[in-house]
Amino acid sequence: MAAITQPPSGMRDLLPEDVRRRERVIGAVRQVYESHGFEPLETPSCERLDVLLGKYGDEGDQLMFRVMHRRDKLRSALDDGALRTDPERVLADMALRYDLTVPLARVVAEHQGKLPRVFKRFQIQPVWRADRPQKGRFREFLQCDLDVAGSSARTVEVEVLSAASEVLQRLGFADFRVRINHRGVLAGMIEAAGIPAELEASTFVAIDKLDKIGRDGVLRELATRGVTAESAASIATMLDPVDGGNDAELARLRTFLAPSPRGLAALDDLAAVLALAAGSPLAARLAVDPSLARGLSYYTGSIFEITVPDLAGSLGGGGRYDGLIGIFLGRDVPACGFSLGLERIIVVMEERGMFGGPTAAADAMVGIFDASLTRDALALARELRETGLRVDLHCDASKIGKQYQDADSRGVPCVALVGPDEVGRGTVSLKWLKTGERAEVPRGEAAAWIRQRLGTT
Amino acid sequence: MAAITQPPSGMRDLLPEDVRRRERVIGAVRQVYESHGFEPLETPSCERLDVLLGKYGDEGDQLMFRVMHRRDKLRSALDDGALRTDPERVLADMALRYDLTVPLARVVAEHQGKLPRVFKRFQIQPVWRADRPQKGRFREFLQCDLDVAGSSARTVEVEVLSAASEVLQRLGFADFRVRINHRGVLAGMIEAAGIPAELEASTFVAIDKLDKIGRDGVLRELATRGVTAESAASIATMLDPVDGGNDAELARLRTFLAPSPRGLAALDDLAAVLALAAGSPLAARLAVDPSLARGLSYYTGSIFEITVPDLAGSLGGGGRYDGLIGIFLGRDVPACGFSLGLERIIVVMEERGMFGGPTAAADAMVGIFDASLTRDALALARELRETGLRVDLHCDASKIGKQYQDADSRGVPCVALVGPDEVGRGTVSLKWLKTGERAEVPRGEAAAWIRQRLGTT
Repeated sequence: MAAITQPPSGMRDLLPEDVRRRERVIGAVRQVYESHGFEPLETPSCERLDVLLGKYGDEGDQLMFRVMHRRDKLRSALDDGALRTDPERVLADMALRYDLTVPLARVVAEHQGKLPRVFKRFQIQPVWRADRPQKGRFREFLQCDLDVAGSSARTVEVEVLSAASEVLQRLGFADFRVRINHRGVLAGMIEAAGIPAELEASTFVAIDKLDKIGRDGVLRELATRGVTAESAASIATMLDPVDGGNDAELARLRTFLAPSPRGLAALDDLAAVLALAAGSPLAARLAVDPSLARGLSYYTGSIFEITVPDLAGSLGGGGRYDGLIGIFLGRDVPACGFSLGLERIIVVMEERGMFGGPTAAADAMVGIFDASLTRDALALARELRETGLRVDLHCDASKIGKQYQDADSRGVPCVALVGPDEVGRGTVSLKWLKTGERAEVPRGEAAAWIRQRLGTT
Repeated sequence: MAAITQPPSGMRDLLPEDVRRRERVIGAVRQVYESHGFEPLETPSCERLDVLLGKYGDEGDQLMFRVMHRRDKLRSALDDGALRTDPERVLADMALRYDLTVPLARVVAEHQGKLPRVFKRFQIQPVWRADRPQKGRFREFLQCDLDVAGSSARTVEVEVLSAASEVLQRLGFADFRVRINHRGVLAGMIEAAGIPAELEASTFVAIDKLDKIGRDGVLRELATRGVTAESAASIATMLDPVDGGNDAELARLRTFLAPSPRGLAALDDLAAVLALAAGSPLAARLAVDPSLARGLSYYTGSIFEITVPDLAGSLGGGGRYDGLIGIFLGRDVPACGFSLGLERIIVVMEERGMFGGPTAAADAMVGIFDASLTRDALALARELRETGLRVDLHCDASKIGKQYQDADSRGVPCVALVGPDEVGRGTVSLKWLKTGERAEVPRGEAAAWIRQRLGTT
């Protein structure tokens, strides 16, 4: 047979070990986010095309996976005059979710009566983008979003960042930095550098590329976009790191932003977030970074990014965006959020060996001594499971050596057997595969014997 | 604004309380299945159309949600000569997953070298079907499948059924029955009743409708399908329940199946499953039921269904199907599985009040006494969280009464405050909202005070 058995391009099968690793990361995210008073939300995989279109720019509209009309509706769409000019619109009215922010905005509008005034939610669900598949970039991947909708208080920034950084801490990351900047500070820098307001957006875009193209690349890009050499040189001084930490950076910014009242106001706002975080574990991670721009256009206040030294790009990012959540309500709803890059976190954890070795499918396997003793084996498996152990049962009475091999091939560390002698004596024979250690213990003590060797109690 | 903010037809937003209930059910499923040595698998939401088509019959092919080609490929599809005659095929090459069994079959073929010889997996993921939406039937819903691929041993039936029924037990169901029958027994009954082999499939279909159309309805349907009145009357005797439990039923079947050697062989097979289960908690649930037919055509051995008195239809079903998993491998792989109807389980649990009241968004809320004490509030929230409590922080220093209201509206039972006096004395003021109880306790004792009232330790 030559059947194609691969998953679709850019999508993955997650085998048991992959799922267990993901679950471990997701479990940490969920626990930390719930401990901060955030609540879980789930939305459908599909959204109406009208909900999605126009929210992500032209590229986003192109990269959506559209779900085709069915039967009669599809057939009548084929007769639609607009079929040739606008087939994406005529042949479909739904698409797979592109992110978790637009669905949040829709939910805030749809369920406003049922949601608290300040809605603190997290959402961990896949999103789909028809990007060109490449190493580490998939067409279906999990997003992991944390947002507060309905408050413009600065405690929100601190809570969002504390929660995201506690997740990384909990997962074992010791060397991450939480870079922070402010869109108003950036705008003020642009103003103070004498760059005209109409070049503000292109200047953001150029600065956002600093990590990829370097300082000189940014200068060249600014020139291309029409920024004078003098202004470009002026703003570029602020892209270099400064010695002396956040206080020195804030002082440098205060001097630079002197000509821009709005820049100074934004700097006060940024300083207020830092002041609220002072004394917390987050404070030691926070690094004010005037070169942080973030790609998305919708941010209106603080912006953040979490980075580690061995990964280009970030482990996650976010910021305040007071204009977006209210799109469906028709009025602004202040909001601030953070999106953890779960797939990247897993990649870094794998590269660093942070997951340890493969996890076993079960804590023990009960073998079947011979077919006539199958019920005894089933009973033993039941007893061990009742103590909370994960216990596999060998499906048949193969040769015992074969049964040991089957356990070993699944990483199961222990095999338990009851033969006729053990039945007579009320015991279990146990073998710890890694060391070869064997013991015959009273039936009631088998679970404890296994647990002791698993290192759990 | 008149923006449509509903989810697509037949799909649902799951608000926090919905998600928490689902997570509770899913958590029980996962824990029980892992305790039985089953491993988690996840597959992509989309599958290649070639993988899916023809596996579910014509109706299934029609009910798949197809994912449309993008851009260039879509435009060239519009020029395809087959566009009018076969648009579903020309405009798409992927569809959303229709069930979890075909993806399992594909995974077994694709990853055979990496999977154990006997692959015991569970999979809890959504599937999509373009059914007409109606009460309790959705176009996107979770499936919860447990299967063993690669063994024809009867221990597999017992393990699969034990695991599924332990899930229900764990969730608090006390009154479910595990109905069991065997496709070979059914075939034998048909043979023994003198119904010609070519009417076997239609007879299965008629019997499968017993719950819906009753005994007389089945008789009428059998007549329509060409079964003689005598044969129909003969087989109908076996659809009535018998007194005396499984032993009596097996004896009745043995007599009825006397003219059918294959029926008798299948009966031995069924009896072997019952014998292996004897003495286990499952045994008391098992009810041999010759009228159980199951709709799907692919079953080859034992078939099962779990029912409760207050739900028409079942909470789940399954059986042995030795021909299906190997479709992509080109050779048979024996398999047996069970699919829990998670959405139905939740419906019944809600109707019976098995979830109890709504769960709180957090165990406590830290209020902000006034803006100058925001950092103290943040620190208190951090301390309480470190003890494992789920702690919300009020986002701003609103009036205290307003803060109490905000906590109450989210079901949060307790508010903790530090005002200037408490800061001076190193204490926290606590209020238990339901009873109005207030206390001022040393800071280090606040978590214990809350926990005591939550009833957890």
